[in-house]
Amino acid sequence: MNPDIMRERQNATFDVEKLTNILDGGPEKTKRRREIESLVLSDPDFNEEDPNFLSRSERYDQAVRKSATMILKLREYGIADPEEIYCYKSCVQSDRPSPLDLHLGMFLPTMLNQATPEQMDRFFMPAWNLEIIGTYAQTEMGHGTHLRGLETTATYDPATQEFVLNSPTVSSIKWWPGGLGKTSNHAIVLAQLYTQGNCHGLHAFIVPIRDMDTHIPLPGIVVGDIGPKFGFNEVDNGYLKLENVRIPRDNMLMKYAKVEPDGAYVKPPSAKLTYGTMVFIRSMIVGESGRALSKASTIAIRYSAVRHQSEIRLGEPEPQILDFQTQQYKLFPLLAMGYAFTFVGQYMKETYQRISGDISGGDFSELPELHALSAGLKAFTTWEANSGIEVCRMSCGGHGYSRSSGLPDIYVEFTPTCTYEGENTVMMLQTARYLVKSYRQVKEGQQLSGLVSYLNEAEHRRVQAQPVAGRPTVVDINDLTSLGEIYKLRAAILVELAAKSIQQELQCRKSQEDAWNNSSIDLVRASDAHCHYVVVKLFTDKLGNIGDTAVHAVLSNLALLYALHGITKNSGDFLQAGLLSVPQMLQISLRIKELLSLLRRNAVALVDAFDFHDRKLNSVLGRYDGNVYEHMFEWARRSPLNSTEVHESFHKYLKPLRSKL
Amino acid sequence: MNPDIMRERQNATFDVEKLTNILDGGPEKTKRRREIESLVLSDPDFNEEDPNFLSRSERYDQAVRKSATMILKLREYGIADPEEIYCYKSCVQSDRPSPLDLHLGMFLPTMLNQATPEQMDRFFMPAWNLEIIGTYAQTEMGHGTHLRGLETTATYDPATQEFVLNSPTVSSIKWWPGGLGKTSNHAIVLAQLYTQGNCHGLHAFIVPIRDMDTHIPLPGIVVGDIGPKFGFNEVDNGYLKLENVRIPRDNMLMKYAKVEPDGAYVKPPSAKLTYGTMVFIRSMIVGESGRALSKASTIAIRYSAVRHQSEIRLGEPEPQILDFQTQQYKLFPLLAMGYAFTFVGQYMKETYQRISGDISGGDFSELPELHALSAGLKAFTTWEANSGIEVCRMSCGGHGYSRSSGLPDIYVEFTPTCTYEGENTVMMLQTARYLVKSYRQVKEGQQLSGLVSYLNEAEHRRVQAQPVAGRPTVVDINDLTSLGEIYKLRAAILVELAAKSIQQELQCRKSQEDAWNNSSIDLVRASDAHCHYVVVKLFTDKLGNIGDTAVHAVLSNLALLYALHGITKNSGDFLQAGLLSVPQMLQISLRIKELLSLLRRNAVALVDAFDFHDRKLNSVLGRYDGNVYEHMFEWARRSPLNSTEVHESFHKYLKPLRSKL
Repeated sequence: MNPDIMRERQNATFDVEKLTNILDGGPEKTKRRREIESLVLSDPDFNEEDPNFLSRSERYDQAVRKSATMILKLREYGIADPEEIYCYKSCVQSDRPSPLDLHLGMFLPTMLNQATPEQMDRFFMPAWNLEIIGTYAQTEMGHGTHLRGLETTATYDPATQEFVLNSPTVSSIKWWPGGLGKTSNHAIVLAQLYTQGNCHGLHAFIVPIRDMDTHIPLPGIVVGDIGPKFGFNEVDNGYLKLENVRIPRDNMLMKYAKVEPDGAYVKPPSAKLTYGTMVFIRSMIVGESGRALSKASTIAIRYSAVRHQSEIRLGEPEPQILDFQTQQYKLFPLLAMGYAFTFVGQYMKETYQRISGDISGGDFSELPELHALSAGLKAFTTWEANSGIEVCRMSCGGHGYSRSSGLPDIYVEFTPTCTYEGENTVMMLQTARYLVKSYRQVKEGQQLSGLVSYLNEAEHRRVQAQPVAGRPTVVDINDLTSLGEIYKLRAAILVELAAKSIQQELQCRKSQEDAWNNSSIDLVRASDAHCHYVVVKLFTDKLGNIGDTAVHAVLSNLALLYALHGITKNSGDFLQAGLLSVPQMLQISLRIKELLSLLRRNAVALVDAFDFHDRKLNSVLGRYDGNVYEHMFEWARRSPLNSTEVHESFHKYLKPLRSKL
Repeated sequence: MNPDIMRERQNATFDVEKLTNILDGGPEKTKRRREIESLVLSDPDFNEEDPNFLSRSERYDQAVRKSATMILKLREYGIADPEEIYCYKSCVQSDRPSPLDLHLGMFLPTMLNQATPEQMDRFFMPAWNLEIIGTYAQTEMGHGTHLRGLETTATYDPATQEFVLNSPTVSSIKWWPGGLGKTSNHAIVLAQLYTQGNCHGLHAFIVPIRDMDTHIPLPGIVVGDIGPKFGFNEVDNGYLKLENVRIPRDNMLMKYAKVEPDGAYVKPPSAKLTYGTMVFIRSMIVGESGRALSKASTIAIRYSAVRHQSEIRLGEPEPQILDFQTQQYKLFPLLAMGYAFTFVGQYMKETYQRISGDISGGDFSELPELHALSAGLKAFTTWEANSGIEVCRMSCGGHGYSRSSGLPDIYVEFTPTCTYEGENTVMMLQTARYLVKSYRQVKEGQQLSGLVSYLNEAEHRRVQAQPVAGRPTVVDINDLTSLGEIYKLRAAILVELAAKSIQQELQCRKSQEDAWNNSSIDLVRASDAHCHYVVVKLFTDKLGNIGDTAVHAVLSNLALLYALHGITKNSGDFLQAGLLSVPQMLQISLRIKELLSLLRRNAVALVDAFDFHDRKLNSVLGRYDGNVYEHMFEWARRSPLNSTEVHESFHKYLKPLRSKL
């Protein structure tokens, strides 16, 4: 063990295990998680070559091997609880996405939700046993977030009782679905349904794409891999071009909407029935933001504890870089954010579980708020985590740029969350739509409940978007509840500002749509403030449930740092609204410095509490034992370029050059 | 040509060619640049495989081949002007770094600057003719920016008149130098010089590392590639461990410092002599920031002109995504920034050239300011460009994540500039040191000149870090000079705030060093504000030299957008200092929206003016003709995973799985 990092751990003021239990949701959950992890980590069948040293085809091959092995072992051990499967899987794949993700995460669940009993008989068991391997083909080359724009057609032919599927344009080629390129032999294809001369919008169809035996693409199917990406090297994201592909009528998923043999269309009972999955996935991504940021800050903080560089005092040995105020200022707010997003992720999961019971019982009353919240928080947390990961990487200096740090991988695997499952700006605008609607309801005299209820108060207090001279400022910058209040007021003011912008545009005789577009900068800003408030509030609420005094103390400091740092980063909003005065802003800067010093001694313990196993971190910089340099050297020596002493290019190009110059 | 992008070009209000000429530095320079580019692009010897489809070893191989070919052709065509070589080279390598970069950019120039005539005879011509291929080995595994911390030793042995070089620890292993791993047979090694029992600090030594004939590493040399990185796949960044390696005394670069045969050490006449190169490289990086951001915004803006998505008006066709205010708000400030940094890069190059004449004549008077400025601007522009590139990438939705977009490559090749040639936070603190020193000089009654002269005025005006009630606000938010003034005052106030923080820390009986460290958040903030002011000022100055009315008009809008956007992003600073009022801040938000609308019609023309050839952009999204989707499909089909219809993993793992489940 590196002596620096050992000393850090000795200096911690709280019991790391207790905090780990809180993150896991209880000591039993920690225990069970570790059991599952050790099942994987002690299993030689899951040994792997470092993907950094493999070609993409080899990486794909290795991932398929591990996925296949995983399926077998899960059945063998009887692991069936979704959370336990998730834990096992993320350990097998070291948090990397894998070729069977869409089969397990989209194809099977969509069957469960939308297949008729007859379709379940025909497709589900073969899919469960991986004879059928499926994916979910929605996005097209020219169309993503805006589903109405999708161009793929499924035209019903009553003569043969078949649907004829087509990709009528280049831009309509299905593009991006994971596992589509090489792995799947079936796809759930989202297509515009045409029957009896009418278009009935998007519906889902089960389309066989490869021969079950030979795996050769079927006639009319043009399928393949979309080529290398920033990350996701293990996944064969694919394209699919359909050329008059005929499937039987009963390959349309018909639990809700139906097409009768004669071509008559039967509408689904509610459009909201397919809505829940989307909300669930976005809620999960919020937790992923916390997780990715926690990993990145674990690596950066541990490395900063063992790395010595530059000087604070002339002539003295180089200090740990964690002692530099600038380094603390980069990393500790991100550490706080990692905790914040993890707790928000827990809240979202619990809320979804609570509401989903109601949904399946037909009660959709709480869905709109959760829908709006999951959209905005997905965007807010992924954007913040995305840039935070890069700050962590760059805080490790040059070594952060090496693949051995693990940080480039965390970034490239995480960054798609800003785009998929709803592009972030579009998500922010969805939340804004809900906020503006709620604002208008208050104006019309309604009382709101839930997380937007502050809009009632705001109306009551007649908050103005300008400082009010002589208004008594009662904010206590050391009190989280008090800070939550001003976050709330900031959100209220920005929602009002956006709503007024729309109104002004309308008064200039703009159309509703143009007024909305011309206010969209303000709308995104309002959503952002709303989400920021929600995060501060939920972090504060979480503290109320923590009994252990020492853990409570350190988490309180983290929460305070999160809230105060957020204020300084958005100080213009708070000043503009008169929520804080200039002297308070200066106090906040000083308070932040104090908090950095206070958190310094617990920084390593706080990342230890995330309890990422070294094999999962996969980072020479983030190793638990802190023995960075030896392992970096060892890793480098295994680089494929070192497999020969002399690279052939010397004999091919460099040596022959001499005689020519 | 895609009709959307054609229409964009028809709508432009200015002559693109005239703006290109301004960017190049005159019509003749544009002409010559295009001549050189077409020399490369029409040359079949430079045809290449798309690196995205190659293994790292193949990429390295291809880069060595092209570099060797390039050396031959440059001699053949007699291209010798450094700028022309740079242009030719960046076209050959499509702006990717290459294995010979350090030989050409560091080894040869260091020889020219620091070798004695005898050493020039012995080493320079062989190096010029690539018998000797060299690199510059400074950074060690445990030591980067802080040079005094380097551990490699060179101990003089008068008995044999040799230096004995050693890597005494794991952390002292040379790490990162480009071309060190496989390409070079020599290295200029920076090591602590020991002679007659004393350490004389860092000096440079020419160390043969591989056999000239066989290229096998020499005895005592442990050398290799440091393994895969985020980018820089073409470059064999290497490690070098020295085990009692003996080199003759006259392999120390002795133009300035010397070791006599008996071991007596002779000091160099001035420590500043080796200083200029560093300043030059940092100044160049400022221009690179402009270049990288210009490329990224070219891709994002062209793609946004041809991509249709979502809806503004219900039922109408999907609009170009460039029509969304949120998309404009992401991209146009970055477009403005691309121009700003390009102009600042031009200024830095000119200033360096002007000053370097003085330096070689022994006049160092202007060097400190340029040194401070180049450090801060390097950090400011690379950080801004770094996050800006990612905004461009994500603004392209999912397709930005594909390697075919070219955007991931721009990012990974650019992001090391935040770390190398001086880690950015350290750079900001260097500039801050100069600013605080200047501030103190003013306090002591001195008059400053140059870009920090505003500190004189600030003292004169007794600017306070608080709003002054009743102070007349005379800022004209449409006037760049007026905005420059408040950027200047903001910088002055933040320099003062940082200086006062140091003072307060000292009053609490902290040491100078702790006071500095405990104020470093404020110091970085002050540097940032200083650099931001300089960029606004230089952009404004540049407008004064532009005669063409139409070009002047559009660049003025860009400059205004840059300045106003910077204010909203830092509105807290301007409000806190009372430089702007709340109503003005609201006006600025409205003015920004107007500028976005105004710039909309010229956006494509403004990126066209950067004049990046399609082969250099290497992006299916950024193609000049806008025919994105066809080429994306064509590119994907060439993906190595598509070389077989059925990947072997199906037969190896997936099919056998069926019988086991």
